[in-house]
Formats: sequence, C-alpha cells, structure tokens
Amino acid sequence: MSLAEQVLEGNIRAAARLMRDIDDGRPEAVEALKQLYPRTGNAFIIGITGPPGAGKSTLVDQLTASFRTRGKKVGVVAIDPTSPFTGGAILGDRIRMNRHSCDEGVFIRSLATRGALGGLSRSTSDVALVMDALGMDIVIIETVGVGQDEVDIVKEAHTTCVVMVPGLGDDIQAIKAGILEIGDIFVVNKADREGADRTARELSTMLDMRHPLEGGWNPKVMKTEAQRGTGIEELTSEILAHRDFFLSSGTIDNFLRERNQRHFMSILRDTLFRKALQLMAANGSLDRIMSGMDEYRLDPYSAVEEIIAKLMPDDTSV
Amino acid sequence: MSLAEQVLEGNIRAAARLMRDIDDGRPEAVEALKQLYPRTGNAFIIGITGPPGAGKSTLVDQLTASFRTRGKKVGVVAIDPTSPFTGGAILGDRIRMNRHSCDEGVFIRSLATRGALGGLSRSTSDVALVMDALGMDIVIIETVGVGQDEVDIVKEAHTTCVVMVPGLGDDIQAIKAGILEIGDIFVVNKADREGADRTARELSTMLDMRHPLEGGWNPKVMKTEAQRGTGIEELTSEILAHRDFFLSSGTIDNFLRERNQRHFMSILRDTLFRKALQLMAANGSLDRIMSGMDEYRLDPYSAVEEIIAKLMPDDTSV
Repeated sequence: MSLAEQVLEGNIRAAARLMRDIDDGRPEAVEALKQLYPRTGNAFIIGITGPPGAGKSTLVDQLTASFRTRGKKVGVVAIDPTSPFTGGAILGDRIRMNRHSCDEGVFIRSLATRGALGGLSRSTSDVALVMDALGMDIVIIETVGVGQDEVDIVKEAHTTCVVMVPGLGDDIQAIKAGILEIGDIFVVNKADREGADRTARELSTMLDMRHPLEGGWNPKVMKTEAQRGTGIEELTSEILAHRDFFLSSGTIDNFLRERNQRHFMSILRDTLFRKALQLMAANGSLDRIMSGMDEYRLDPYSAVEEIIAKLMPDDTSV
Repeated sequence: MSLAEQVLEGNIRAAARLMRDIDDGRPEAVEALKQLYPRTGNAFIIGITGPPGAGKSTLVDQLTASFRTRGKKVGVVAIDPTSPFTGGAILGDRIRMNRHSCDEGVFIRSLATRGALGGLSRSTSDVALVMDALGMDIVIIETVGVGQDEVDIVKEAHTTCVVMVPGLGDDIQAIKAGILEIGDIFVVNKADREGADRTARELSTMLDMRHPLEGGWNPKVMKTEAQRGTGIEELTSEILAHRDFFLSSGTIDNFLRERNQRHFMSILRDTLFRKALQLMAANGSLDRIMSGMDEYRLDPYSAVEEIIAKLMPDDTSV
C-alpha cells in the first residue's frame, strides 16, 4: 500500500512520516500529495491568530478539548515563527502535548522551519492537507499574526478567529483595517484582566463602522478566559455557526478556487527555483556564477539575466 | 544622462523616481540597478530591529540627527510590515518626515508593500542600494523584528541594533537564542521605565553566557530614552566602534560575498517565476490550467509538474 493510501486509511504513523518527507523536500512526498489532493476538502479548517502573549496556545488547547467532547477528531498545526521576539509557542506546545498525547483523536504538529520548500505558508497548507486526508474533522492552525507569512496562512482557514488581549498598550488603537478584514470571529482573551470590556467595546465599534455586505457574515466579539475554560463553549458554538454560514452561503466555492490558485502559484514558484538550481549545479554554471560574483566581475542582476536567457528564452513553448 | 548616472551624481529626484520604478517592477529599473551595483558598497548600513512599541522610530529619528551633526548624509528605509497587529510605523514616519523634511542630507523612504517583486527583503536591499549609490554615508533600515522577512532584512545591515523595552511582559524570558545572534548592539529603550535595569541585566547575563569567538565582537547593552535624546551619543559612538571593528577584522569580505549570493538567489527566484507566468499567459496555458483546477480535473501539484516538464526539461542547457 502506498504511503498516501495508508494516510487515507487513517494511519497516524504514515501521516507523520509523510509530514517528515514533506519537510525534507523528498520527491515521493509530492507524489503522495498529488494522490491525496482530490480526496481532501472534508476537514473544517480554523485559523487562530493574534499577537504574541494573547494566550492563543491555551485557547487552542481548550478548543481542542471542546471539539473532542463533541466527538470530532482534531488536528493542530502550531506555527512557531522562529522569531527572536516571540517564544510563547514552545511552552504552549509542551503543555498541549502532555494533555492530549494519549488521545488518538488529536494530532499535533509544530512547524518551526521556514524557507524550506516554499516557506511556511506552503508547509502549513501541505500539513493541513495531510491531516484532512487522515480524517481529522477539524484542523486548527495557530499562528502569531504579525507578518505577511502569517496573514497568508490565515487564508487557508475557513473560519478565522482573531485573538486580542486587554492591556497590550496602544496596540488596539494602532490596529489597521486589515485585522477587521481577516477575522470572522474576534476573541478578547484573558477577559478577567482590567480593560477587557473596553477592548471588546472598541472592537465592536470598529466592526460596526464597516458597512457589512447584504447577507454577509457579521463578526461577533467574544470574551474568553482560556486559562479557566470560561467562554470556550460559546466560542465553539460561534465557530460552528460560522461553518454553517460558510457552507450554506456558497462562499466555499470561491474559497476553494482561490485556494487552488494560491497553491499552484506557490508550488510553481518554488519548483521553478529548485529545478533551475539543480540544472545549474549539474553543469557547473552555478559555481561559475558564484565565483564571478565573489570576484566582482558579475553583479547579481546581470547573472540572473544571463541564466534566464539560457533557461527560458522568449520562444520557450509551454 | 541615464537615470543611474543621475543617481550617482546625487540627484535626489532621480533616486526617488528609480525607487518608484523598482516598486512598479519596470524593466528599466533592473537596467539601472545593474549599472549602480558595481558603484555601491560605500554606505554604512545600520539595522534597527525590535518588537512593536519599543520606540524604534523615535530612536531612528535621534540617530539620524546625531549622524547629521557629524556631517554624515543619512538614508532611512522604514519598513512598515503592513501587519494587522503593528501600526506604530505610520505615526513614527510622519514625525520624522516633519523634522527632517527640509534637510537635503536626509532621505527617508517607507516600504509598506509586500509580495511585489520578490518580497520586502528584496525591495529593501534595492532601496538601500539606491541610497548607497546616491551618496548617503549611512543607511538606517528600521524593521519590526517579528517575522522571517524582517530577520532577512537585518542581514543587509553591517551593524544591527536590537531594541528592547522594559515591561513588555514575559517577552524577555521568551527570547530565543536567535535574538542574541542577530544583535551587534542591544538597546534598552524607554530606560526611565520601571524594570529597565533588570531588562538590561538579564540581556547582559544572556550575552555573557555565550562563548564569544576569539577576537570577535562582544555586544554591549546600552540604555536610551529616545524620546528625550538620552544615551543617543553613546549609542552613536558604539555603532561607529562596531563599524571600525567590522572594517578592520576582515568580516566585511564574508559579508559582501554572502550578500551577493543572497541577492542572486532572491532575484533568480523572482525572475524565474515572473518569466514563467509571462510565457504561460502568452500562449493561453495559464488559463487552461486555472480552469482545469476550477473544475477539479487538475490538482496544483500535477499542474506544476506539467509546466516544469515543458518549461525546463531535464536536458535544458544552462
């Protein structure tokens, strides 16, 4: 049985192996993904994003437990942006791992590496795809919403929860329109903290100022204390309400179309680059260019121009 | 006179136009960059990075003033990561703009767009290159150090200052080894705030725990109150001390080699992708693939494989 077939049968070890193969950039991984692609689309993908320190890991842990009591299998893709300035995910992961480690209905995967094989958003969508194929009903993608990479990741989700926290200084005033666009549900976590009501009220006001589309989804602001489990049931219900809206309103068709196009572009970009490097390494032209630049005989722009002229002349037929 | 020649003569309007051309992805811009490349390498590039709210904009403003009193021309590339969760740069820019707007020896450029032409780190290096060619003695790149993009940007700098601030919660404990690696100088800004000494002490301890290379640079922890200008002179001196070290220790050769290689890879990746899209659009195969995916006849992985086989067969000569 192929690795892809094993994954489709719900074999967790096969899924873990495929994810490693994806990480390592093995060609077999692409073959498996091709087999899995048409068999996916069953998992509901939830994105959880917000600034560092908002308590996202704890919230994801609670949501996982909440979906488990509803009998759903839950996959979690936790993005650790390997940033010098955020580090919460590490500890959060360990906590989650312990709590759900004996539960076969929970599959947790942390992504920390970047750059490899088309960047983090590419790896995230591949891992989510495998979890989907594995039979996870829910896939939660947790990311620190600070960079473009993270915003791209959120696009993979059907429902996006933006997690805020009171007392993060002036951040709430500094929020740009962008944040309102990406959130389907807004969560003020650590709601026992001073200023929680004000943060929630300000968010609501900002949301009200937008002109909602006729028949569109109106994002709510929810309050939670993930640490104590307060508000989790309500949040789970709201997520499921958004799912129902998503499935019934026809939004899903556009969503899938855009997703496929985005995946195609990202895979193309990455594959072209790797293939070009392979071809250049094979005949020594990569070495030649590198030493040309080392000796300042060649600038990077001219070097690329030279390569492109040989690799993809204007009359290349596609 | 070509645009590149005008830039090399110090024509500020020509430089601004070239930067617009770069933004717009015009082919002439690449020609100009090719002409400029061998004429650059004179500017000293300083990277300022740190979490949102650390007061980086104010610090950059003060450093600019400090270098101006030393008779240096200063270029500033301020990165606005267009993130939903950071917004400080906008206000900071306006303040700076007002203060230095009549000074011909200061050139400020904000970069907010992403994705265009190879991403933010590519645009940043192009803009820094133009400022270098224009005759700026110092180029300060200011970025929010939260994503991989931002860490990549820091690699463009000869000297990197990591700005921290007391009272950002648990962030200091959560700092990973990475932050210690990227900083040549550490700045605790808003040093009048409670906890500043503790933050500085903890940073020093973490730095001491590393085993410094024989003859290597030992990063210091400086304290500033950028708002009031306190500690700016000392920071400026330390930056210049690092520059002297950098120039005398031979580090610069490796730095330039790695920079050229990085630029080459980034430009290659981007150019291959754009050229492929052009070729595919020209003969209608892009449309064919898109509709194949819309109708679920084609998955993105297989689509890319098909393109690559035609565009870059294994026997392509480079």
